Amino acid sequence: MPFWAWKFESSPGHQITQRRTLPNPQGPKRLTESMAIHLHTDDLPAGLDLGGTVAIDTETMGLRMERDRLCLVQLSAGDGDAHIVRVTGDHDAAPALETILGNPRILKLFHFGRFDIAVLQARFGVPVSPVYCTKIASRFARTYTDRHGLKDLVRELLGIEISKQQQSSDWGRGDLSPEQLEYAAGDVLHLHRLRDELNAMLDREGRTHLAEACFRFLPDLAKIDSSGWCDLDVFAH
Amino acid sequence: MPFWAWKFESSPGHQITQRRTLPNPQGPKRLTESMAIHLHTDDLPAGLDLGGTVAIDTETMGLRMERDRLCLVQLSAGDGDAHIVRVTGDHDAAPALETILGNPRILKLFHFGRFDIAVLQARFGVPVSPVYCTKIASRFARTYTDRHGLKDLVRELLGIEISKQQQSSDWGRGDLSPEQLEYAAGDVLHLHRLRDELNAMLDREGRTHLAEACFRFLPDLAKIDSSGWCDLDVFAH
Amino acid sequence: MPFWAWKFESSPGHQITQRRTLPNPQGPKRLTESMAIHLHTDDLPAGLDLGGTVAIDTETMGLRMERDRLCLVQLSAGDGDAHIVRVTGDHDAAPALETILGNPRILKLFHFGRFDIAVLQARFGVPVSPVYCTKIASRFARTYTDRHGLKDLVRELLGIEISKQQQSSDWGRGDLSPEQLEYAAGDVLHLHRLRDELNAMLDREGRTHLAEACFRFLPDLAKIDSSGWCDLDVFAH
Amino acid sequence: MPFWAWKFESSPGHQITQRRTLPNPQGPKRLTESMAIHLHTDDLPAGLDLGGTVAIDTETMGLRMERDRLCLVQLSAGDGDAHIVRVTGDHDAAPALETILGNPRILKLFHFGRFDIAVLQARFGVPVSPVYCTKIASRFARTYTDRHGLKDLVRELLGIEISKQQQSSDWGRGDLSPEQLEYAAGDVLHLHRLRDELNAMLDREGRTHLAEACFRFLPDLAKIDSSGWCDLDVFAH
Amino acid sequence: MPFWAWKFESSPGHQITQRRTLPNPQGPKRLTESMAIHLHTDDLPAGLDLGGTVAIDTETMGLRMERDRLCLVQLSAGDGDAHIVRVTGDHDAAPALETILGNPRILKLFHFGRFDIAVLQARFGVPVSPVYCTKIASRFARTYTDRHGLKDLVRELLGIEISKQQQSSDWGRGDLSPEQLEYAAGDVLHLHRLRDELNAMLDREGRTHLAEACFRFLPDLAKIDSSGWCDLDVFAH
Amino acid sequence: MPFWAWKFESSPGHQITQRRTLPNPQGPKRLTESMAIHLHTDDLPAGLDLGGTVAIDTETMGLRMERDRLCLVQLSAGDGDAHIVRVTGDHDAAPALETILGNPRILKLFHFGRFDIAVLQARFGVPVSPVYCTKIASRFARTYTDRHGLKDLVRELLGIEISKQQQSSDWGRGDLSPEQLEYAAGDVLHLHRLRDELNAMLDREGRTHLAEACFRFLPDLAKIDSSGWCDLDVFAH
Amino acid sequence: MPFWAWKFESSPGHQITQRRTLPNPQGPKRLTESMAIHLHTDDLPAGLDLGGTVAIDTETMGLRMERDRLCLVQLSAGDGDAHIVRVTGDHDAAPALETILGNPRILKLFHFGRFDIAVLQARFGVPVSPVYCTKIASRFARTYTDRHGLKDLVRELLGIEISKQQQSSDWGRGDLSPEQLEYAAGDVLHLHRLRDELNAMLDREGRTHLAEACFRFLPDLAKIDSSGWCDLDVFAH
Amino acid sequence: MPFWAWKFESSPGHQITQRRTLPNPQGPKRLTESMAIHLHTDDLPAGLDLGGTVAIDTETMGLRMERDRLCLVQLSAGDGDAHIVRVTGDHDAAPALETILGNPRILKLFHFGRFDIAVLQARFGVPVSPVYCTKIASRFARTYTDRHGLKDLVRELLGIEISKQQQSSDWGRGDLSPEQLEYAAGDVLHLHRLRDELNAMLDREGRTHLAEACFRFLPDLAKIDSSGWCDLDVFAH
Repeated sequence: MPFWAWKFESSPGHQITQRRTLPNPQGPKRLTESMAIHLHTDDLPAGLDLGGTVAIDTETMGLRMERDRLCLVQLSAGDGDAHIVRVTGDHDAAPALETILGNPRILKLFHFGRFDIAVLQARFGVPVSPVYCTKIASRFARTYTDRHGLKDLVRELLGIEISKQQQSSDWGRGDLSPEQLEYAAGDVLHLHRLRDELNAMLDREGRTHLAEACFRFLPDLAKIDSSGWCDLDVFAH
Repeated sequence: MPFWAWKFESSPGHQITQRRTLPNPQGPKRLTESMAIHLHTDDLPAGLDLGGTVAIDTETMGLRMERDRLCLVQLSAGDGDAHIVRVTGDHDAAPALETILGNPRILKLFHFGRFDIAVLQARFGVPVSPVYCTKIASRFARTYTDRHGLKDLVRELLGIEISKQQQSSDWGRGDLSPEQLEYAAGDVLHLHRLRDELNAMLDREGRTHLAEACFRFLPDLAKIDSSGWCDLDVFAH
Repeated sequence: MPFWAWKFESSPGHQITQRRTLPNPQGPKRLTESMAIHLHTDDLPAGLDLGGTVAIDTETMGLRMERDRLCLVQLSAGDGDAHIVRVTGDHDAAPALETILGNPRILKLFHFGRFDIAVLQARFGVPVSPVYCTKIASRFARTYTDRHGLKDLVRELLGIEISKQQQSSDWGRGDLSPEQLEYAAGDVLHLHRLRDELNAMLDREGRTHLAEACFRFLPDLAKIDSSGWCDLDVFAH
Repeated sequence: MPFWAWKFESSPGHQITQRRTLPNPQGPKRLTESMAIHLHTDDLPAGLDLGGTVAIDTETMGLRMERDRLCLVQLSAGDGDAHIVRVTGDHDAAPALETILGNPRILKLFHFGRFDIAVLQARFGVPVSPVYCTKIASRFARTYTDRHGLKDLVRELLGIEISKQQQSSDWGRGDLSPEQLEYAAGDVLHLHRLRDELNAMLDREGRTHLAEACFRFLPDLAKIDSSGWCDLDVFAH
Repeated sequence: MPFWAWKFESSPGHQITQRRTLPNPQGPKRLTESMAIHLHTDDLPAGLDLGGTVAIDTETMGLRMERDRLCLVQLSAGDGDAHIVRVTGDHDAAPALETILGNPRILKLFHFGRFDIAVLQARFGVPVSPVYCTKIASRFARTYTDRHGLKDLVRELLGIEISKQQQSSDWGRGDLSPEQLEYAAGDVLHLHRLRDELNAMLDREGRTHLAEACFRFLPDLAKIDSSGWCDLDVFAH
Repeated sequence: MPFWAWKFESSPGHQITQRRTLPNPQGPKRLTESMAIHLHTDDLPAGLDLGGTVAIDTETMGLRMERDRLCLVQLSAGDGDAHIVRVTGDHDAAPALETILGNPRILKLFHFGRFDIAVLQARFGVPVSPVYCTKIASRFARTYTDRHGLKDLVRELLGIEISKQQQSSDWGRGDLSPEQLEYAAGDVLHLHRLRDELNAMLDREGRTHLAEACFRFLPDLAKIDSSGWCDLDVFAH
Repeated sequence: MPFWAWKFESSPGHQITQRRTLPNPQGPKRLTESMAIHLHTDDLPAGLDLGGTVAIDTETMGLRMERDRLCLVQLSAGDGDAHIVRVTGDHDAAPALETILGNPRILKLFHFGRFDIAVLQARFGVPVSPVYCTKIASRFARTYTDRHGLKDLVRELLGIEISKQQQSSDWGRGDLSPEQLEYAAGDVLHLHRLRDELNAMLDREGRTHLAEACFRFLPDLAKIDSSGWCDLDVFAH
Repeated sequence: MPFWAWKFESSPGHQITQRRTLPNPQGPKRLTESMAIHLHTDDLPAGLDLGGTVAIDTETMGLRMERDRLCLVQLSAGDGDAHIVRVTGDHDAAPALETILGNPRILKLFHFGRFDIAVLQARFGVPVSPVYCTKIASRFARTYTDRHGLKDLVRELLGIEISKQQQSSDWGRGDLSPEQLEYAAGDVLHLHRLRDELNAMLDREGRTHLAEACFRFLPDLAKIDSSGWCDLDVFAH
């Protein structure tokens, strides 16, 4: 159950725009007062500028890349707004989206990016780099726990409860419900602030260089995964 | 049981040198006719030039880095000779060896280099890079098997049988037996030729870039291992 | 706890008939306003016409076919009424029921039909064909989840909560409780609409032919199961 | 180590033909006295007639279909000769081979055909049907054992020892060794006679209809496998 | 939390007697209106007659017979009263209790009697026979479930909820709490009625002879267990 | 490979009789000098007297009783001769055999009798009692090992090596090979002497009563097994 | 949620002191009426006397000693006050703390001391002895359960509920929250009384000598653990 | 198959003495030239002096102490002779043996002493201390392997092959075979020299204090084992 209500707006060139005013019940820790979900079809609007650090998540028909097609790509500049690209075809190009994914000067933020990067690289044919993964960062920073889900991070580091109830739903349907859109948007709204918190911990404990080495390898690992070598067997004894 | 007999020679500045003439029973596939094992203490001789591609292996008191000290470092230029450095102290520098390990223009060849690199980096404090690992290369090239041990590679790709009988022996003793020295040397004699064979297969199947991405990450992975994050958990879901 | 109350009626030739008016609290998604459970002994009434697509479920004394006898067969034409045949003897024929089971022009709907079909074929000696299984259909359509229980399907696709509380109860007793009868009837009331929803998803994702191939094999698989080859070992490597 | 030596012959339109005279050490149970291995590139010769029942096997770069390409297709009419098609490209058609695979009047014999059929259907785009699988037949006929490998069947039912030593070798290399060719041919030489023996046992024990139901489903199962649903999960409880 | 309150009474020759009036909230299914717990030390009172069918349970310091001593023996004639014998010494005889345990005309009822019988036989040196075990009876009668705990049986067959909260408590302490005494008594109050229900089911399904064969073997099995052959290995393949 | 050769003899009323002279290579420990295998069809000869203690074994089409039919019953009086009854039909009576099986004054010896007794009781409808099982006896007597196979017992207690090579073979074929007949006979030739040895050990260690309790329960256990309760779950916690 | 509120006081030479009045809702079982948490940096105040029996606990950045640094040491004299030493550097000495740890006349109480002792010995270089561990004592005394967590002990033996909610939190941060400080203090407040209860049980059951043997070994075991021999493998068969 | 032959001698007060001359085939590494096995009943001869360091091993009827009685105690002074005490009764004292076991100035050597010490302490009622265990010593010294069986130690450190063939045999029989006596004696002949080798390695690697801490704890651990706390659970988290 989301704890705020989105306001729908008409927005030229987009399918749907939801906007709402945040009641901000938890005081100074909350995001900006006004947020919007922009829903696009098959690509971002040309020329949309999401800044130098973009949070990205994807939704698919399932977890087997060779079988389950990409349905949504969600992006956020970290300003509380989310852009959701609904992918309807299997082969069309998405030049605006690809420009962001492949831009070596735009840092892409993910949570468990290994899967998303593999899906995006396979679907759009561009290397996704450079990247940052809040799950990997948490594994290096938060050694006192084995709970590194997005929900756990957001609760402990930002003091916010998010719902994972729509996680397993039919992302391929033509008429996505408002609950689905909110869930999908929710996964990219917090990544910028999580990165700030995690970087401070990594720095304090002298573990930044280890996490960064993993971020550099992540696009390659995603490529290895999608080429059919799973489970990092290649490094095993 | 080794299938050739080494000839011991006196060599100024080294402890022991073994040399022998190879009976060459298996025809054109064998190595050069004359080989030597040079045994050194705590460092290589100053100025020893092993070329731009050096095969390296290590022997330790066991598999737990924080407990089991490094005993031997074996190196070979790929010419059939082997240099074995016996490491007696826990903290002394080894400038000649460190120069090779840290030289960015010398490619270091390993078989399952992940462990060796971690041990060498922890003991000598230099990053070991760039590297090539025949086990990783085999995992990408030889997808038709799950046998990627050095013994398996040498048998299939070079047609030579090697023994692993001394693998688990007391490498920390002061008086290493001839069988131990031969076994230790044996692990670096074939890596150059294995690399040639594996590179040809990787190239043929279009998998070279995947293996190379792993080689680039390997020194970082070794650092992560020796910092206490085992089993690549950091990438797991 | 069932969320509606059945009304019992006297019905010639049947043992008990329950009928009730549905309060319909959830609006347009609900079934017809008036439903009945007809309880029969050892066979359906002769000449009962349940149409070309019949939902079927069974209840037994347990899951081992060679040990645990068939107790109930539940059927529905998809109109909200359910017919429950209580099977009291081990060997008597049930001509009216067998006519439906074996009729090649009547599609039989099951949820996890593999077990029910095996039980019915073994007890009545007729091949049960053609069939449709909502569990198999869900495995092909809903790849975004691993929850394919009837309760999960009915909740997600129809928006209805059903109870599985009576699932493990004594179906062999002579005086079945109203709770047992409702539970038994409940498993056939929703299969027609589930099939519609699942077929639409299979069609959208181009997976219909895969599910249909499995439906064709299902009566054979049930025969193989009840002949003593379990767990599909026959196809294993 | 094969127990007979092939004789190489020149054969117009083929790459290599090996022929030899069988010393026939095991008396009346052996095959015909003279056998040949015909090696072709990318397709069978046009018009080659292998009769109404063709034994087929394949060799690939490994067991992951989406990663490891098809290297060889071996076929035999059951007369002791074997035809090996070396597949060099990833996308070219092979009309003569496809004619046999897709011909509904030619029975295709496999041992563990599930994998071979999936590979062939994915590479050549034709449904492979009708089929017979000696592994499945053995699972129904030889319930007194859990050893259903080709080597086990050939030993018990035909009294012949075959070697599986080359099973995991580099089938993608350009210069296949004579040992590899013999191993590859060996897997199709015995399937006709195995089928005769297994059919007699199935008939004696009244289990023929169970095996045949599985053969009918096998091409569908192979399609389901290669579409990304593994391990027959779709039928599981 | 027990759902009735015991009344304590003074009773000559016993330590404590609790008695209370049952509020009987659940109508006709409840036990007699007035019940008592009699607490004895080291033996029953001489001459106490508990009839021909006695429900028995025990509490110990743990589950390892060779280590954890017997603390309590609870008995009931099925009339709603319970007798609890607190065992303080390790070697003293208990003639009144032993007379009941060893009497071949008194049927002893247990739930999972295997452990209790072993403990009683080892402590008092008399064979405990004949016996009835409601857990075994349930395994034969209630094949539709895998829940055969006392709590499950009492709920389904008698419609009563009992608590297992005190199950793991310190039965060796000198001052047993009222909660402990009630819990201990509770395990023998329902066995007579459970036996009636289970016998009716066993009879209906024709499984009585199987359960009875197990009851006959149970004292021997308990002896085998306490002699050091655990887990019925002796019958394994 | 059997270490002696049987001599075939013609015997009226039987199908085949093999007889041979034992070369007796192992001195005083061997059996009688002359032994015979008598092969019968569907029953023993009427009036055949095998004494008060008969060793019995069976061969089936596999290990699933409800699927794999009984093929052979082997019996021996302990005099070195073996009688093999080949069972060809599924339902015919075998009065001579049934008389021995059901005779309460004839002790039946088995090795792992649990399965054989279940098969015999299910096929011939007579309770098989009393029984002795050398595997159970060994589990109580030979606590110093976990090897209780017939081969292990015969080696350690009698100093004889027997082969289990034909264990998994096609016992349903019409023309059993001499190797099969010898293997089948071999399983009943040694049970009398094994019983003597094991009884002496059980008596010495005071464990006879434990083994005997299990023998008494064994026919019931076999009945429970064949009624569909496997793995002794009924006694589990 | 802690069930009392601390009062903060200024205390010379310490960073923070919290003090509060206990509302004592649970009657006679509660601790003293007034308690304080004293927070120190890098050592205890010189000359602080905590008596002859000190309860000790530690908090670290995680469970891998070679990776995760010590953050807090909590101590209590058993009077309801707690002293928390925040450890900021990796190498500085803490003479006041070390004097207590190494004093052979001061008994150190832990719950699962194995880890704490290893961490303290590794960080401060003094043997921590003699020790008492409430977890080990519970394993010997409370054989009727397998729940030996601190929370379980405190509930059963003292009747107090404690929270483990802050167990996995970031103990390395500079600004520890009041919730963290209370949680950390809570783990040493009850150990003195738990020891009294457990000693009484050990004495009653004659198991004191077994627990004491383990306490004597515990400092050695901690040393063995931190030297790299984990999981008590050294004693395994 | 032992590689030397014992010579039997008559010896007053003992049952049997075997003596032989060792052919010494392996040169300087062998034991003394003449060795004897002395077999005693129920105790050592009074006054027998085996020196300050005695190797000890035991043989029992199996591995469950509460079930399987002690059969043999073997001792050696390290001079190549072995004394075997056959234990025939369950309760008799053995004063000469007990004097050695309990003597605090005699070091007792075992291989996996944990079990032997527990058996001896339980049977003779004396604490067995001080002790040395070659298995524990090997676990600390030989970290390069996980093979710490007596056979492995004797091979690597002494260059001698010993047989474990009689390990599982009937040690309770009255007439022990020569093979059994030799096997039993063999387990104590090498422990003195193994200790010398292992102590040298422990000393070289600085691990002596860790092994010695375990030796001190070993008699306590044996007591804990035989009191019913297995598997070192008491130290687990």
